[in-house]
Amino acid sequence: MIYLDHAATTMVRPEARTAMAPFLDDVFGNPSGIHEISRRAKNALESAREQAAELIGAAHPLEVVFTGGGTEADNLAVVGAALAGGERRAVVTTAVEHEAILESVAFVETLGCRVDRVPVDGDGRLDLAELGSRIRTDTAVVSVMAANNETGVIFPLADVAATVRNTPALFHTDAVQAFISEEITVATTGADMITLASHKFGGPKGVGLLYVPRDVELEPVIHGGGQELGRRSGTHNVAAIVGMVAAMEVSVAERKLMHDRVAAIRDRFETALLAAVPDVVVTGARSPRLVQHSHFRVPGVTAETLLIRLDQEGVAAAAGSACSSGAIEVSHVLAAMGMSDGEAAECVRFSFGWSSGTDDGVEAAERVAAVVAGLR
Amino acid sequence: MIYLDHAATTMVRPEARTAMAPFLDDVFGNPSGIHEISRRAKNALESAREQAAELIGAAHPLEVVFTGGGTEADNLAVVGAALAGGERRAVVTTAVEHEAILESVAFVETLGCRVDRVPVDGDGRLDLAELGSRIRTDTAVVSVMAANNETGVIFPLADVAATVRNTPALFHTDAVQAFISEEITVATTGADMITLASHKFGGPKGVGLLYVPRDVELEPVIHGGGQELGRRSGTHNVAAIVGMVAAMEVSVAERKLMHDRVAAIRDRFETALLAAVPDVVVTGARSPRLVQHSHFRVPGVTAETLLIRLDQEGVAAAAGSACSSGAIEVSHVLAAMGMSDGEAAECVRFSFGWSSGTDDGVEAAERVAAVVAGLR
Repeated sequence: MIYLDHAATTMVRPEARTAMAPFLDDVFGNPSGIHEISRRAKNALESAREQAAELIGAAHPLEVVFTGGGTEADNLAVVGAALAGGERRAVVTTAVEHEAILESVAFVETLGCRVDRVPVDGDGRLDLAELGSRIRTDTAVVSVMAANNETGVIFPLADVAATVRNTPALFHTDAVQAFISEEITVATTGADMITLASHKFGGPKGVGLLYVPRDVELEPVIHGGGQELGRRSGTHNVAAIVGMVAAMEVSVAERKLMHDRVAAIRDRFETALLAAVPDVVVTGARSPRLVQHSHFRVPGVTAETLLIRLDQEGVAAAAGSACSSGAIEVSHVLAAMGMSDGEAAECVRFSFGWSSGTDDGVEAAERVAAVVAGLR
Repeated sequence: MIYLDHAATTMVRPEARTAMAPFLDDVFGNPSGIHEISRRAKNALESAREQAAELIGAAHPLEVVFTGGGTEADNLAVVGAALAGGERRAVVTTAVEHEAILESVAFVETLGCRVDRVPVDGDGRLDLAELGSRIRTDTAVVSVMAANNETGVIFPLADVAATVRNTPALFHTDAVQAFISEEITVATTGADMITLASHKFGGPKGVGLLYVPRDVELEPVIHGGGQELGRRSGTHNVAAIVGMVAAMEVSVAERKLMHDRVAAIRDRFETALLAAVPDVVVTGARSPRLVQHSHFRVPGVTAETLLIRLDQEGVAAAAGSACSSGAIEVSHVLAAMGMSDGEAAECVRFSFGWSSGTDDGVEAAERVAAVVAGLR
């Protein structure tokens, strides 16, 4: 099987599995206790926090808030900032964010917050002047993703940061998809808050983090015992946190290598595919894209049919976001880029990652070409 | 080391660890995908859901919503019901709930919901008539725990259910602490919603569930891709869910055995302790209590000092809730029972569980007696 759905989830890296093992075994303490078995867990937790802070370029370990995943971290950033201090304030975001952001934004809208969703053009590019014009004095947070989870189109975060900098708003970025191949740090993004999700970079599922300085006021999404400086309550998932940070360490150490290796595999894939099926249209081809993503349309072939046939041929790929109920829905991202429902229904996403083999791209292109020929 | 902090967290049962292993390895798919590696994960997820539903006596598997833990499930029940349909409605709860409930309640209060916190008496007992009188036509949810996490005092859920039954309110119970020794099902609790937390019964941390029928409207706490029928978004933590349900199965199968075994250990502990230190005061002694809990006050000895000394002697215990930042705070539970701050600061909690040895109680009592004698 050729696994080309790394954007949905990755295989757990052996380093993460090894790091997790003791915490599913004898180091089982609740870090909030005061006895030795708790202190051992607490020490591991705080070491992981220090390491994560360093890897993302945070000034202090307590700027890392561990969450139950990327979706929760996105909710904390947007809902948390909008409702901070019991006030309800405005949110600016883009039309192509992940559902974790868009649904958080829709939620605070029901609570009375004003919300702006800035459109993109046909190449998935953001109009920065337009973004800037939507920010007002009551804007709590501007949330712009580092790269799109469906198309892989990269947003110019430094420019977004410059746009937000002279306003009262916080700048949050969902860097979940970009982290494995782009240098994502506090300095490179210029963001006040950054979301990461463990299972997108070889860590276990069910854990993520939000980078957020201590002086940023956030209403928690999960209320309770007051862990994480009161920002995220609930018993710490020590095993998953330690596993995530182990995967994060390898991912950052190998990022440059990964970038070049995956870029080569993806480029060979697209070259071979376009040679064999010349009418394939690569989405966002004129925009900067994540090197591990290939999102394209095969005219006349529905994604669902293509993906089912490919699955039978041992190629695991996806149609855009994997976050819905398994059914393929019309993508809000492609609609925002001006695609018709019919065109959007012909789009698929191939995403490479740490477990991709050198020839996966070429081999996958051959199988896609054969399946498309068969279907046509 | 004698581990007497099972109420904070338990050792992961080997059955759970074994069940989790494949999902941290080759069955790594995101259940929301459509290819084979996703379908294998999806099948495991839905099998776990069926099994969990059966173990809790739910009518349908989709009445089980998997969450990132008990705290999140509590938030979903209370915040979710209070804000359902964009309305803001009233909440009734008790003064001695876990912080996950009390802080959720405080949050919806900031959003304009009316909130009632029903007091308890010196034995931790609830005034049911008082509870009933607080429920009005706009009450969305009544949240009453199955048993208190600090004292172990059991609330009469059948009576609470009868009180709520003829009102428009939903009845939610946090059964996190009671699950291992009390029969917790939809029928026995009479509840509309039930919270369970995996790591309290030998499952991994970072996962829990909320039993909630499909026709109950809830505003999600975590918004996003629409997993769990839209009630809880975020990539499913398949390994943890499967591990939790494996632990749940053993826990239910061995519950009667566990109840009697742990009751014997706990009773021998209290008998030996009271014989050696006659002025020890057991909290809630005149109320029905969980058989695995022993919460008591040692007059003249602060909990912090006692626990630190016991830790040095190889006894791991706690002072009430383990959910705060590690510091011992004045317990809202003991305050609600009428204890002074000084008395509350002398209380400790010993909690037994599946990994307790037969002689742990007697041995622990001896060490407590020796430490208390030394401190006095």
